[in-house]
Amino acid sequence: MAAYDYDLFVIGGGSGGVRAARVAASLGKRVAIAEEYRFGGTCVIRGCVPKKLFVYASQYTEHFEDAVGFGWEVGERSFDWKKLIAAKDKEIERLEGLYRRGLENNGAEIIATRAELVDAHTVRLLKTGKTVTADKIVIATGGTPNPHAALPGHELCISSNEAFHLPELPRSILIAGGGYIAVEFANIFHGLGVDTTLIYRGQEILSRFDQDMRQGLHKAMVEKGIRILLTDVIQEVTRAPAGGLIAKTMCGETIAVDTVMLALGRDPNTKGLGLDAAGVAVDERGAVVVDKYSRTSVENIYALGDVTNRVQLTPVAIHEAMCFIETVYRNNPTSPDYDLIPTAVFSQPEIGTVGLSEEEAAARYPELEIYRAEFRPMKATLSGRAEKTIMKLVVDAESRKVVGAHILGHDAGEMAQLLGVSLKAGVTKDDFDRTMAVHPTASEELVTMYNPSYRIRDGQRV
Amino acid sequence: MAAYDYDLFVIGGGSGGVRAARVAASLGKRVAIAEEYRFGGTCVIRGCVPKKLFVYASQYTEHFEDAVGFGWEVGERSFDWKKLIAAKDKEIERLEGLYRRGLENNGAEIIATRAELVDAHTVRLLKTGKTVTADKIVIATGGTPNPHAALPGHELCISSNEAFHLPELPRSILIAGGGYIAVEFANIFHGLGVDTTLIYRGQEILSRFDQDMRQGLHKAMVEKGIRILLTDVIQEVTRAPAGGLIAKTMCGETIAVDTVMLALGRDPNTKGLGLDAAGVAVDERGAVVVDKYSRTSVENIYALGDVTNRVQLTPVAIHEAMCFIETVYRNNPTSPDYDLIPTAVFSQPEIGTVGLSEEEAAARYPELEIYRAEFRPMKATLSGRAEKTIMKLVVDAESRKVVGAHILGHDAGEMAQLLGVSLKAGVTKDDFDRTMAVHPTASEELVTMYNPSYRIRDGQRV
Repeated sequence: MAAYDYDLFVIGGGSGGVRAARVAASLGKRVAIAEEYRFGGTCVIRGCVPKKLFVYASQYTEHFEDAVGFGWEVGERSFDWKKLIAAKDKEIERLEGLYRRGLENNGAEIIATRAELVDAHTVRLLKTGKTVTADKIVIATGGTPNPHAALPGHELCISSNEAFHLPELPRSILIAGGGYIAVEFANIFHGLGVDTTLIYRGQEILSRFDQDMRQGLHKAMVEKGIRILLTDVIQEVTRAPAGGLIAKTMCGETIAVDTVMLALGRDPNTKGLGLDAAGVAVDERGAVVVDKYSRTSVENIYALGDVTNRVQLTPVAIHEAMCFIETVYRNNPTSPDYDLIPTAVFSQPEIGTVGLSEEEAAARYPELEIYRAEFRPMKATLSGRAEKTIMKLVVDAESRKVVGAHILGHDAGEMAQLLGVSLKAGVTKDDFDRTMAVHPTASEELVTMYNPSYRIRDGQRV
Repeated sequence: MAAYDYDLFVIGGGSGGVRAARVAASLGKRVAIAEEYRFGGTCVIRGCVPKKLFVYASQYTEHFEDAVGFGWEVGERSFDWKKLIAAKDKEIERLEGLYRRGLENNGAEIIATRAELVDAHTVRLLKTGKTVTADKIVIATGGTPNPHAALPGHELCISSNEAFHLPELPRSILIAGGGYIAVEFANIFHGLGVDTTLIYRGQEILSRFDQDMRQGLHKAMVEKGIRILLTDVIQEVTRAPAGGLIAKTMCGETIAVDTVMLALGRDPNTKGLGLDAAGVAVDERGAVVVDKYSRTSVENIYALGDVTNRVQLTPVAIHEAMCFIETVYRNNPTSPDYDLIPTAVFSQPEIGTVGLSEEEAAARYPELEIYRAEFRPMKATLSGRAEKTIMKLVVDAESRKVVGAHILGHDAGEMAQLLGVSLKAGVTKDDFDRTMAVHPTASEELVTMYNPSYRIRDGQRV
């Protein structure tokens, strides 16, 4: 081995990069990690964490309304957006500090700079112009919202990045996109009192999710007062003479709003990284191509997390980092396991899901049993809120295995986490049936659906 | 078979009785069910359901306080106890109607009367004095709060029964007991603004629960402002000259409060039932003695639910009813399964638990791995609330099986339900480790505890 400056050089201080750097350093490796902005990556700085804090903030409107049915009278309330932003920023700063200290305490060197590859073992630190060498290099530069540069007026729009730092809460917003980011922000802004419209090119929001979840959430959002336009796209955004923006859509709508937010997918951060110089291949979307051990086309260079455009989730990036450590530093080649990843959409109501949608399962199994319950949550009986919880188990009739579980309702994310354990362990519907109910809960519905709601045979509902 | 009036006569219209009557009727049996008060039993009328509605009502105080950290300003609020009671009563009436209709729609005859056994096949309907005969009889008369008749002044105290119908919300309450009813009501009353004291003879609240849960909840309750007196009992309750009550305790405290509530266990409802006449044996606590098929000492008489004092939980009574149906009407002898019953305490924070406490497991397994996390829930980072979530997995080191799971925190009941599925299916710690986290949730902590916090070997922490 040549005398490199470092055993490992990590580019990018997000979830995947920090984990790889921290654990490698804890194993005694000489590690440096370069980050041009702030530690924590999308998740901590402008993703999962601030998003969830916004969700909490936006839920209070419903709490105030619901309280009335339980005997409360609640006086005038007002919301101060700047106060939320300041509180959120303070918490993010605290978390960033934890990330930095985790690195420092394990002996990783933190370099505050953008970095680019010069060759397979050499990195240029842009702040100083200095180059350093490393035996192994990890690219973990994440992704960024697609700016939709082809849209006239796109420069007038914001992305989720800016949504976390808007100087004022808009009175109205138009959000383009049908993925979880678009849907979550639509619910957040609506909850904070913003007149909210969602526009999405597809037939239904949240493609790839189970149809019951997609339609159930759509219905709940519309009932709350969120406007949803489907099979339509923004064609042009212009400034309105009196302030605000005008969006014109393909279907002929003209929408005047304070703010337009684009949530049209995310692009891997691979530009200006020197990937060409080092010989690291990218695909047509600009994502770093990796093998099943997260190794790029260059033998000593690995890539983790969103920059590889595999599964864009924080826990997946961390898992990939841990597999990288096993493979490279523990002599135990381990490839990430992408099977049965439970996930949540922090909409209101939430979606929690693991395994196959009914549609996916129908294409894979000759016969399915579908157990489905739709009910009013207990809290709604007194609050009077018109909302429904939907719970659904997709069961392979032959093996009795539960191959998909889907929940729309309060705390669905927490439930998905634990359903994830069950499905990963390969439990059967009989295991659910054998489990005693916890009363009164919402999730007890999942263990008391004794008869299939319907069956799917050879892809057809029977 | 003699020509009885009915195939099945059920005494008691609670969860167990109604389920047995309804399903037997649906199978074509001639069924009557006698209930002297209202259908739904403890659970619906004065237990689980109204309790949970009270819990929701009492949580709004924290919501109002927490909102401030998220940028909200909330004006004056007031709580109207009578409005809550009226809303609760309306919902209970609706549920009672569902129970009645379920019986009627399946052809069970509803008899509004108290009933008592005359002999093994004969029941007297007290309202009319008429007697009827039945091939099989089910006793499902439930339980009632122990009135603690030995306590001087006990007649001045209320039980949970009255707590659901207090004409006014007291300004202060003293609750005697350390079980889940005492603890839940202490949190409810405190949340509604009542100055609350809990007094319990034991060393710590919630005996038989895991120590971390007991101490964690105790601490949280005290931090909120609930006063807890341990190893002490009320010795006398008297009327105060100026109104309200005075309670004197064994340890010498004199406590002046508006209301004293006794939550000192529940007694089976077996008095005046004619059990002697029919030859049905009871134990020293007055509970009907049953075999593993819920059969009493009389061959054709069965008993279900709280009256048998096995496990006093609604889902268990329902399960016993379904086993009775299998055994008696489907020729499939089935005894109730009491193993790994998940349960919740709807305190604030909640407790959700399934399987063995650390203490129980330590007595049973030579070596345990304890995985324990204590953390501030994300919401508390902005609300500023000083609360901790505790999550704990108890793992048999040899088999790797998770033999106990315990959670103190928001939504712990929902989590316990789904952990129940996993434990019932016999999952291992490795199954937890293999499961991808759902971020950001509280429950992800359960799948990211990779190293034991400590071990227990031969009963000793090492």
